[in-house]
Amino acid sequence: MKAVILAAGKGERLSQGKDKSKPKPLIPLLGLSLLERAILSAKESGIYDFVIVVGYRGEEVIRYVEEKQKRSGLNIDFVENEEWEKGNGLSVLKARGALKEEEDFVLLMCDHVFDSGILKELLAKAMLNKGGKSVLCVDKPENVFDLEDATKILLERNKPKAIGKGIENYDAVDCGIFYCTSAIFNALEEEMVKGKYELSDAVQCLIDCDKLDVFDIGGRFWCDIDTAESLEYAKNKMLKSLEKPTDGIISKCINRKISKRITARIVNTNLTPTQITVMSFIIALASAVFFFLGEHKYLIIGGLLAQASSIIDGCDGEVARLKFLTTDYGAFVDSVLDRYADGIMIFGLIIGYWRLYGGISVWIIIIGLFALLGSFMISYTNSLALPTSPQALKGLRFENIFENSVKGGGKGGIPVRRDMRLFVIMVGAILNQVMVMLLLLAILTNLEVVRRLSSIKRIFRLPMVPPT
Amino acid sequence: MKAVILAAGKGERLSQGKDKSKPKPLIPLLGLSLLERAILSAKESGIYDFVIVVGYRGEEVIRYVEEKQKRSGLNIDFVENEEWEKGNGLSVLKARGALKEEEDFVLLMCDHVFDSGILKELLAKAMLNKGGKSVLCVDKPENVFDLEDATKILLERNKPKAIGKGIENYDAVDCGIFYCTSAIFNALEEEMVKGKYELSDAVQCLIDCDKLDVFDIGGRFWCDIDTAESLEYAKNKMLKSLEKPTDGIISKCINRKISKRITARIVNTNLTPTQITVMSFIIALASAVFFFLGEHKYLIIGGLLAQASSIIDGCDGEVARLKFLTTDYGAFVDSVLDRYADGIMIFGLIIGYWRLYGGISVWIIIIGLFALLGSFMISYTNSLALPTSPQALKGLRFENIFENSVKGGGKGGIPVRRDMRLFVIMVGAILNQVMVMLLLLAILTNLEVVRRLSSIKRIFRLPMVPPT
Repeated sequence: MKAVILAAGKGERLSQGKDKSKPKPLIPLLGLSLLERAILSAKESGIYDFVIVVGYRGEEVIRYVEEKQKRSGLNIDFVENEEWEKGNGLSVLKARGALKEEEDFVLLMCDHVFDSGILKELLAKAMLNKGGKSVLCVDKPENVFDLEDATKILLERNKPKAIGKGIENYDAVDCGIFYCTSAIFNALEEEMVKGKYELSDAVQCLIDCDKLDVFDIGGRFWCDIDTAESLEYAKNKMLKSLEKPTDGIISKCINRKISKRITARIVNTNLTPTQITVMSFIIALASAVFFFLGEHKYLIIGGLLAQASSIIDGCDGEVARLKFLTTDYGAFVDSVLDRYADGIMIFGLIIGYWRLYGGISVWIIIIGLFALLGSFMISYTNSLALPTSPQALKGLRFENIFENSVKGGGKGGIPVRRDMRLFVIMVGAILNQVMVMLLLLAILTNLEVVRRLSSIKRIFRLPMVPPT
Repeated sequence: MKAVILAAGKGERLSQGKDKSKPKPLIPLLGLSLLERAILSAKESGIYDFVIVVGYRGEEVIRYVEEKQKRSGLNIDFVENEEWEKGNGLSVLKARGALKEEEDFVLLMCDHVFDSGILKELLAKAMLNKGGKSVLCVDKPENVFDLEDATKILLERNKPKAIGKGIENYDAVDCGIFYCTSAIFNALEEEMVKGKYELSDAVQCLIDCDKLDVFDIGGRFWCDIDTAESLEYAKNKMLKSLEKPTDGIISKCINRKISKRITARIVNTNLTPTQITVMSFIIALASAVFFFLGEHKYLIIGGLLAQASSIIDGCDGEVARLKFLTTDYGAFVDSVLDRYADGIMIFGLIIGYWRLYGGISVWIIIIGLFALLGSFMISYTNSLALPTSPQALKGLRFENIFENSVKGGGKGGIPVRRDMRLFVIMVGAILNQVMVMLLLLAILTNLEVVRRLSSIKRIFRLPMVPPT
């Protein structure tokens, strides 16, 4: 499947701010230019072939994309539309030569950012829809940031009846994500003969001959970036989307709020997610060194560093998601370093305590060891995958099973995931209560492991039922 | 899909030994009766509906199966063939009434044990084979234990030409695993009119009218149990099959050899795999207690117990596989208890050493902690599943990736899986070299984690290539 991305317009209203020097497709949003964002969102949906229609300052756009996507494995063709000022319909038509005859394609606007899940679902729907119709993604009007400027659609029993910026009655809004059959080109040509150069004119034409379906994106995020305000709106929405429903309570109330702000800054640097992971690990090591020193003033510094490490540990994933840099390698390194950090911090606490109060040391070692074992076991049990279940469940991690019953990190389970554990360590260190803190960790983590064992037993000891 | 299992014969030659008192289907083989084994092998291939044809001492067989499979979720119908002495073809024909008209089914012999992978592949092949032919599983004659008594098949360009016990020329042997269309019933009736009551007569009839295909089982295990010798042969083959290609070197050379013998005995008890897991855990705890005592004589006992625990830890999986009791719950408990055992044993070593040589204790704690961390990380990195890869790879555990490059636990990686770690602990304890042993563990395990990080990097940092 190819994607045609329109990146020909000037975007005057947006280019009036600090990014005046850049053509619209190259305006940055959370570390990526709008055009790169469109390309990478499509790539996440399994699209590797692109036709990009450039116009205003096209050379610059081409140079930028070629430089950035050099080693991406994507096939990107560029088409120049010198008459870009006439209307976006003409840009679509110019892409025709870069497609095979009768080839379906996805049409995207470089100035629309969207959750790539929308495109995945659209493609899945379009594969089923064998009627040879084009499919336009639509959203409810109340979800749209700049409704006035949006392209509206009138529906009748879920069938589109009219489309246009200026129509009076409407039920939905065009999201700028479009599964097109080649019928669009004929429609465009027909309309251009009449002097109509906008894409929506051709879409009206498809509606009139019943060649268009709509697909409700179900409230997922998208935004048309036309003004500095909409850029800011999109940025905030995207940062907000970094919160995960499975975030633990400390993560939700503290860490994520801070890490989002940090992420919003570091996406603009060249820092890779793995570098951020390593930074978080180094902060954790520093924290362990302060714990090791044992004295209360150092404990406080160590505790604060532990919490800082916990916060930064959120940023790697956030940057990865925002910049489409999520990799298995990154997730692997993150998990491994987190476990080492956990171990070494608790180790620092044990030794620090022991150095200070040498006499009563066996207990601190026993308690510390169980805190360490328990912390490990929480992560370990999360990561175990189902080895023997029926195919449909195979590879499902126990974590996801727990998550279903322990949504939000709290209900039904003891909240002792890493966010909480490091928070407990910080509080304990600040209060100079290392023994109590380790005892608390030892008891809660190991209790949660026992709870998991019994909950897994309930789930998996059911007699095997024939598949129906 | 239904399976028809023939369990009507007397099995005179087999019943002459100690199991004289039992009808053939109930003769035990590694903890399960032959008939249960046939049922559970089929269940593993996704079959939940059974028709069992009983004859000789049929009541007894029915009572036994009903008792054993009460809560299994299987639908089992019984058909009695009072004329079981006439020939096994008649038993097949008796099953007709328990099947729907024109229904395909799988035909199994209760006295044939087989690797359930054969049946899975046969079903997969039969689903593709839309020609409406029956398919008979065949093996090469050189793989057959008792060739004289086997039913032979003559092939011509992979098509069957003749079948029978007495034929002179043959290329293959009937394994007694048969995908049947309802055509078999007509063939049986035709032959019976001629006074021929054996199944192979009807199969010859299918061959003559080109309604039979054969499927080469590719060297997988099966065995026709007719004599005490073949029962012993099958038992040894099945025990041998418990060795995994991914077993570590200590497991291969020591643990598996012993655990197989233990397993061969405990399959005949009611011990569940999870109970064996718990036993192994308790032995590990005992080992830790002896380590804790510190003195050399106790260290030796602790070391031997650690190795014993390692061996018993193999038995749970072996019993589970032999008795079709593999569950996710069991695998989960096994993993969790193994990690606790690892931690507590190393903890015992640290404290024992420290109690004995109190003066130099910071180093033993540091080294011990890294041995603990490293041991944990080996298991943890094995268990991590790929979170973000394309669907085909999703849920693949890193362990399997390592296994591909580190087949046999050795080549390309440092052999520090649990079998080796516990062996090192035993040797170190016997030699009274706790510090050296922990240092060795600390270095090797953590080095291996680093090696894994870099090997994963090589694999997963490749640019994403479009799926072809």
